[in-house]
Amino acid sequence: MARVSKTVTLAHGSGGTKTRELVELFRAKLGNVYLNALDDSALLTPDDLGMEEGSRFAFTTDSFTVAPLFFPGGDIGKLAINGTVNDLACLGAIPRFLSLGVIIEEGFPFTDLERIAASIAEAARIAGVQIACGDSKVVGHGQADGIFINTSGIGVIAPGVELGAARAQPGDTLIVTGPLGEHAITIAIARDKLPMQADIKSDCAPLTQLVQAALAAGEGGLHTVRDLTRGGLAAAVCEIAESSGTRVLLNEPAVPVSAAVRGASDLLGFDFLELANEGRMVLFVAPDKAEGVLNAVRATAEGCESAIVGRVLGADEYTKYDLSPDRARPLAVMTTEVGGVRAVEPPSGELLPRIC
Amino acid sequence: MARVSKTVTLAHGSGGTKTRELVELFRAKLGNVYLNALDDSALLTPDDLGMEEGSRFAFTTDSFTVAPLFFPGGDIGKLAINGTVNDLACLGAIPRFLSLGVIIEEGFPFTDLERIAASIAEAARIAGVQIACGDSKVVGHGQADGIFINTSGIGVIAPGVELGAARAQPGDTLIVTGPLGEHAITIAIARDKLPMQADIKSDCAPLTQLVQAALAAGEGGLHTVRDLTRGGLAAAVCEIAESSGTRVLLNEPAVPVSAAVRGASDLLGFDFLELANEGRMVLFVAPDKAEGVLNAVRATAEGCESAIVGRVLGADEYTKYDLSPDRARPLAVMTTEVGGVRAVEPPSGELLPRIC
Repeated sequence: MARVSKTVTLAHGSGGTKTRELVELFRAKLGNVYLNALDDSALLTPDDLGMEEGSRFAFTTDSFTVAPLFFPGGDIGKLAINGTVNDLACLGAIPRFLSLGVIIEEGFPFTDLERIAASIAEAARIAGVQIACGDSKVVGHGQADGIFINTSGIGVIAPGVELGAARAQPGDTLIVTGPLGEHAITIAIARDKLPMQADIKSDCAPLTQLVQAALAAGEGGLHTVRDLTRGGLAAAVCEIAESSGTRVLLNEPAVPVSAAVRGASDLLGFDFLELANEGRMVLFVAPDKAEGVLNAVRATAEGCESAIVGRVLGADEYTKYDLSPDRARPLAVMTTEVGGVRAVEPPSGELLPRIC
Repeated sequence: MARVSKTVTLAHGSGGTKTRELVELFRAKLGNVYLNALDDSALLTPDDLGMEEGSRFAFTTDSFTVAPLFFPGGDIGKLAINGTVNDLACLGAIPRFLSLGVIIEEGFPFTDLERIAASIAEAARIAGVQIACGDSKVVGHGQADGIFINTSGIGVIAPGVELGAARAQPGDTLIVTGPLGEHAITIAIARDKLPMQADIKSDCAPLTQLVQAALAAGEGGLHTVRDLTRGGLAAAVCEIAESSGTRVLLNEPAVPVSAAVRGASDLLGFDFLELANEGRMVLFVAPDKAEGVLNAVRATAEGCESAIVGRVLGADEYTKYDLSPDRARPLAVMTTEVGGVRAVEPPSGELLPRIC
């Protein structure tokens, strides 16, 4: 069907002939046997999913409202694929199929929509996932901000793989898989057109291979993996400490942060521990496996700047850091550059909305 | 965690402590073992899904932008559950797990959010599905319209169940499972506060049991099931005709429409064939199984007003209705109340946006 529209109109949300223009735009870029059936649902077999005896599933959802839609290192389409891929990868799953739901504001240019669809297609190809089903809605001018995207994903977890926030243990070594904050600072600069050296780009990347490399090297000693999106490393370590009933110690000088991000953070008043990333994770690993896992993730393209940044404290160390299992806070502390100790808290406000 | 906010703020989208208020609100209503793990993804086993040897999966996604959010017979929460449940049911699947992604406008009242969460919980309970994973985003004032909801769903299809748009066959009988247009007219009246008798309410309902009853009675003769959402019966029969390479004949006097909907449609200039429903389906059934399927769906609460409304034409009948397999249009025709024949086309404009 030839496309005749230059911008998206309410008629494109009608379910009729105009909606087909949207469907065809996405199908041209993303089409596969599942999507092309054009039924109400995609039909998937256990073989399609790569299941074997004892396989389990990971299922997740994420909505993307990032502004601006296009930024150095990525765009909302690439983000929507990698964000959901990484949520699946955190449980040790191999991501297989994603859904794609778009809410589009009336007047949105078709050229931008095509650029986003192409980006989704490329990111999906690189991450090894297929778009199995989709949906589009159109709302009036001023009722959304350009485009919002939801992706939900299904992955398959191999027998024996057991990762989760509750599994972190005293003594675990914490590995961060690369310099923090590049995504957040990129968005901040792009949104407000800040007059800074623009040699920072988003870290947005799929991390399935990194997690699989860590699993293989960890030999059962990899306990917890979490991607460091909204709330950054601060939110992640506090949530994991809470889920596992532990307390975490970070070592500030060891946390990888580029000079550019550090400088921008200082200037903008951000704490780099709280900055969002879209291609960085924290791994909790049994101490005897930490070096092996560190070497394995450093051997991947996305994890080459990985570093050990801290550990889970033993109960006998709580007093030293003024911590208590009976007090809800703090859940984490950090030894600082100047040799002090400070509490690490999850962010309580919002310095930088619509980061993802 | 005690809630301290009366309206949703950008800080609720930060990923930090305020985000936990949102998480706790939904978890209080929807909590289960999958959601409560608070990992990046939900972990599901084949047993959780009710799989057996030969099972396959249905996977679907739908975003909901309905305005107003609350209307007679339902609200955006109930709609978000039943819309996705019915998309799964159309493939013959038993819906099991749904994801829940919400995009909330800054300033949205927590009381409305709680009401929607409660409605989601009740609809999920009635439909027999669990919310396995969720995500919330907050955008600034004027960047969305209250709340948008995405649900994606996974269902399990029993061995031997084969439904799909491409499976419709010449000779198939068409059954519509109840009076058309009640959802669309309800929204039109509620949105524009039209001075009409308000004895119409949305047909929004889960139809899993109806489809399963039809499958059992159809004994392999049930070929295609589609729910009649955006674009209504007109869009559905045209899409199925296109997918299956057939042509459809509808019989206008047989199409169930209440006097109230018919009157409102005439007044508002709507074609009731194009009106959206959220609890109605069209079934394509082999003619020798049609009576059995009709009786089976009439025995369900949601299908008690089901009716035979047409059939798939044989190629030898095309000339009589001025149809040709070589011409793309029309894909369907209808014998009218006054004895004529008219083409049925998918809607080409948008009379009533944001119906779902």
